[in-house]
Amino acid sequence: MRYKGMRYANASCHIPIIPHTSIPHTFMNVHIITIGDELLIGQIIDTNSAKMAQMLLEIGAKVTARTAVGDDHEAIIDALRTATKQADIVLVTGGLGPTKDDITKKAIADFYGVGFVFHQPTLDRLNQILERLGKPLTEALRTQCLMPQNATVLTNKMGTAPGMWFEESGKVVASMPGVPFEMEYLMQHEVLPRLQTKFNATPTAHRTLLTAGEGESTLAEYLKDFEENLPPQVKLAYLPSIARVRLRLTVSDPDPVSVEKMLEIKFQEMEGLLPPQVIAGQGDDTLESAIGRILKEKKLTLATAESCTGGYLAHLITSVPGSSAYFTGSVISYANEVKMNQLGVQEATLREHGAVSEQTVREMVAGAIRLLGTDMAVATSGIAGPDGGTPEKPVGTVWLAVGNKEQTLTRKLQLSKNRLLNIQYSGYYALNLLRLFLSSPEILSGE
Amino acid sequence: MRYKGMRYANASCHIPIIPHTSIPHTFMNVHIITIGDELLIGQIIDTNSAKMAQMLLEIGAKVTARTAVGDDHEAIIDALRTATKQADIVLVTGGLGPTKDDITKKAIADFYGVGFVFHQPTLDRLNQILERLGKPLTEALRTQCLMPQNATVLTNKMGTAPGMWFEESGKVVASMPGVPFEMEYLMQHEVLPRLQTKFNATPTAHRTLLTAGEGESTLAEYLKDFEENLPPQVKLAYLPSIARVRLRLTVSDPDPVSVEKMLEIKFQEMEGLLPPQVIAGQGDDTLESAIGRILKEKKLTLATAESCTGGYLAHLITSVPGSSAYFTGSVISYANEVKMNQLGVQEATLREHGAVSEQTVREMVAGAIRLLGTDMAVATSGIAGPDGGTPEKPVGTVWLAVGNKEQTLTRKLQLSKNRLLNIQYSGYYALNLLRLFLSSPEILSGE
Repeated sequence: MRYKGMRYANASCHIPIIPHTSIPHTFMNVHIITIGDELLIGQIIDTNSAKMAQMLLEIGAKVTARTAVGDDHEAIIDALRTATKQADIVLVTGGLGPTKDDITKKAIADFYGVGFVFHQPTLDRLNQILERLGKPLTEALRTQCLMPQNATVLTNKMGTAPGMWFEESGKVVASMPGVPFEMEYLMQHEVLPRLQTKFNATPTAHRTLLTAGEGESTLAEYLKDFEENLPPQVKLAYLPSIARVRLRLTVSDPDPVSVEKMLEIKFQEMEGLLPPQVIAGQGDDTLESAIGRILKEKKLTLATAESCTGGYLAHLITSVPGSSAYFTGSVISYANEVKMNQLGVQEATLREHGAVSEQTVREMVAGAIRLLGTDMAVATSGIAGPDGGTPEKPVGTVWLAVGNKEQTLTRKLQLSKNRLLNIQYSGYYALNLLRLFLSSPEILSGE
Repeated sequence: MRYKGMRYANASCHIPIIPHTSIPHTFMNVHIITIGDELLIGQIIDTNSAKMAQMLLEIGAKVTARTAVGDDHEAIIDALRTATKQADIVLVTGGLGPTKDDITKKAIADFYGVGFVFHQPTLDRLNQILERLGKPLTEALRTQCLMPQNATVLTNKMGTAPGMWFEESGKVVASMPGVPFEMEYLMQHEVLPRLQTKFNATPTAHRTLLTAGEGESTLAEYLKDFEENLPPQVKLAYLPSIARVRLRLTVSDPDPVSVEKMLEIKFQEMEGLLPPQVIAGQGDDTLESAIGRILKEKKLTLATAESCTGGYLAHLITSVPGSSAYFTGSVISYANEVKMNQLGVQEATLREHGAVSEQTVREMVAGAIRLLGTDMAVATSGIAGPDGGTPEKPVGTVWLAVGNKEQTLTRKLQLSKNRLLNIQYSGYYALNLLRLFLSSPEILSGE
């Protein structure tokens, strides 16, 4: 039963075991309750709980248990009773919408044995929203203004249903809508700050390094000795996502000065142990934003020419605020005619090598630069599946190219996932190829 | 263009979310316990629970609650105690692998107060697997052959850790590994058949209607009387997502014939109460797949011309398998030069009305049809934010257009969310505008 340094020996899907992410000296125990029949019958997958757990870890709070119940008055009250016994903080999501299957508010009021009061600020806010939309106030929406007497109302700027905050006998219950971006908004702006104020956790600080292009197990090899010799107040977590791994260092120490100092020392040590080309950014950087920063610095413009990614790569690039400064546009060439007529891919190339080939993506890059007048372009062509594979080019075969007017870098991927994952992997690997191309010393300013 | 009396006919694809199977009599209540620290810290998202719930519904069993606990002996025993009180059947996943040191197995044995016995058939099976792989039997693997005395061992043909089945005081506890395909194998081949033999459940069936373009509260107004007068065995749930709401009807009744009949009657009644133009599909339909089906049926080809959505709209369209049959490509015109040079938007239009205007999106539609040779096109132009707004056109102002060679339908949105949400809302509203355009009787075959 040793955990230290132990990991799942699963090369392709490397899941670190808990000690890498657990924070020992925390005093905030959280029980999450998710409410909704749709969760119980398996119609939707609960992504909120994972997101909440991650956000809580950032402030040093730890989820100790999670309960899912249906839209059932008694079951919700039972869950609240159990959860408030077990944990200091109970976070509830779901069941706050205007329709009748949403009964969380009533159950919480009954749990506390209180009645309802009308909350005028919520009505004012609703009226503002409805005025902008040109829609009338419905009876269902009006009931959203009724709040349990002991609730502190949390303003939800992302939707109509407000959140609620309760404190009784030293225990906190906070209730949020189940819509993911509404929950995230309320967590970030209302719930987490209140928790930080109310509970005094050990001073804790984090710093995150964004890596791209290497898997978790490879990174773990580079950091093996570093990890094994970390002092007990420092924890390293591997947070993997598609084509990227975030490395998060957490330091918890009663002395705030030591926390900052230790974090600085260990972060620099960690950075120094990794090959420079895998380091893509820090903190809240994303691969998309890091690339945007380089393009802006080098004053380069970019276009994409996409087949299998079907716009997903351009979507990633344009999800960054201010991306219009360097991103000019794309040609999505799903049909071969568009590859030929717009991007100027030779008919002979398609005939001899096929649409999914190194030659085709090279010509797509050249065509996009010419057509959209940019300094650089990225191209993708592949078989996302589930159909369209051949023995020579099975589903998951993808060619990527990045280039400017002088040179082009290409890469072949052999993915094996479902359609959507193939699209997403292709998009992120293309971004990383772009990052590597941009990091090469020959790529100078576009001016 | 008016849509009164129009309805999207999807008789060709009538998929109930849960296939109606022959279902036994009494009501089976299931409590799911998932075990693993990695679930609590948000490092992995629990997809097992949703899958299990779907599989259970197929045999008429209903998940009434779900608990997630860490790799903690006491927490697991507590969860088992609570769950066996609440439900007839407790399904446990996780914590059976060789690296986790069988913490689940130990906790279950302690919960029942029994010791372990060595299970020779499991050792024989392990040896067979190891021989094939050319690997030695480790001590960790050997412990997988130790079983609680009261366990019925469930052979796991997908992995090394066996499942376990317990029956005591009329309650069932079944334990499975957390690896998704191992869990699914054991559910399908061992757990579900045993549950069907042991219990008889109340027949339950579901049917889901996909709506688009109206919010939850507006739909609730249409369905107010219907909902209030629903018989107790029928339940209606609203499942909202961006620009769409799924309406799910659930019927539970001891008589399987009544279930089917009631579901059919109430579903038709509900459909009849909604304006036809909000009904987008049924069952597993998405807005993207429903549109794809119409385009295929009408033999029409489609292109997009995107500014603010930056490729997201094309990504939604191409996320549907087989979309290459109707989707030709896109021009993403982030820069005004691309709008002019590629899509043929007049310089005067941009100067007089701006890039975010009805005139511009109309010209983008015409340009995309001309350039990419399609029957139809969809265009978007807006200010996604956070910067770029003006007093006349604040952040969130978006113009959409859908058209063919003869006519164009436009719509203005005034969104107020963050950048990514503005992009996503614009994408889904554009899809819905396309759906409405396609549902108009004037839009005939492309042949």
